[in-house]
Amino acid sequence: MELIEGIMTRRSIRHFTGELISDEQLDTILRAGFQAPSAHNYQPWEFIVLRDKEKLKTIKDFHRHAKMIDSAGTAIVVCGDNKKQDNRGLLVADTSAAIQNMLLAAHGLGLGAVWCGIYDIKDYVLNLSSLLNLPEHILPVGIVVVGNKIKDRSIQDRYDKNKIHYDSW
Amino acid sequence: MELIEGIMTRRSIRHFTGELISDEQLDTILRAGFQAPSAHNYQPWEFIVLRDKEKLKTIKDFHRHAKMIDSAGTAIVVCGDNKKQDNRGLLVADTSAAIQNMLLAAHGLGLGAVWCGIYDIKDYVLNLSSLLNLPEHILPVGIVVVGNKIKDRSIQDRYDKNKIHYDSW
Repeated sequence: MELIEGIMTRRSIRHFTGELISDEQLDTILRAGFQAPSAHNYQPWEFIVLRDKEKLKTIKDFHRHAKMIDSAGTAIVVCGDNKKQDNRGLLVADTSAAIQNMLLAAHGLGLGAVWCGIYDIKDYVLNLSSLLNLPEHILPVGIVVVGNKIKDRSIQDRYDKNKIHYDSW
Repeated sequence: MELIEGIMTRRSIRHFTGELISDEQLDTILRAGFQAPSAHNYQPWEFIVLRDKEKLKTIKDFHRHAKMIDSAGTAIVVCGDNKKQDNRGLLVADTSAAIQNMLLAAHGLGLGAVWCGIYDIKDYVLNLSSLLNLPEHILPVGIVVVGNKIKDRSIQDRYDKNKIHYDSW
């Protein structure tokens, strides 16, 4: 798939066949995350690959928008290391760029993926930090849920010229 | 350029020929930004295209890492609308996904681009909000500086297996 075509056609996928993605596909998605830019090139991310059925079920129970997580079978929790980047805004920006790379890579592999937001929804941050035994300086920012999709979704054109301004608001 | 190859080879570019990007290239980059995912599909982004030389120079004066901005000639300030998304973490995440799409699109077009962080560096947020006359609910998150690059940069492999965890920290 061509790069710009991939950006334009990626959609959030929430319906999965149940067949796990391969280790090779997982590796490509993780490598895409690592290749994100970061402020000062600090690369303040950490990735937790979740396939444990009990833990996936626990997330499904506390996260209102992660009901698809066990049918996907693989979730990657993307975290930011507050010791490497102590500016919270930049930490969320860097890890979000990593997540977007991962969603696009999944699309490029023909897989389906969806981003479940975690930060800054206080309950989700606390529940996930506890479930994964995260140290205090490791902030869970979002979850990439990824699997084999049942079907493609049609393209949604979100362009809105009213949101483009020139030289001033 | 192939999607996954593009993700893996994109680098921050800070040296530009001085020739402006075309309107068609600008349009493609903006469209890529619009196609990002967002929490609840709120699409809470706004884009301010800056080519005014005085304004670019003002940014260069207050932002320590934007010295390349006038040689690039085009800057796109990506903002989040706090009225559309009142969770600050999700707002930064959504706009950062848009920025990453734009950086990748620039790479796919053979252009160079770099992300200059704004939020949450208090001075930068205040200076930029004042310069662009932003309403209080519009938060500047980052700047995409884009232009024609002088040369490519070699690939940097940032993969680090110590940052990958399985089922728990």
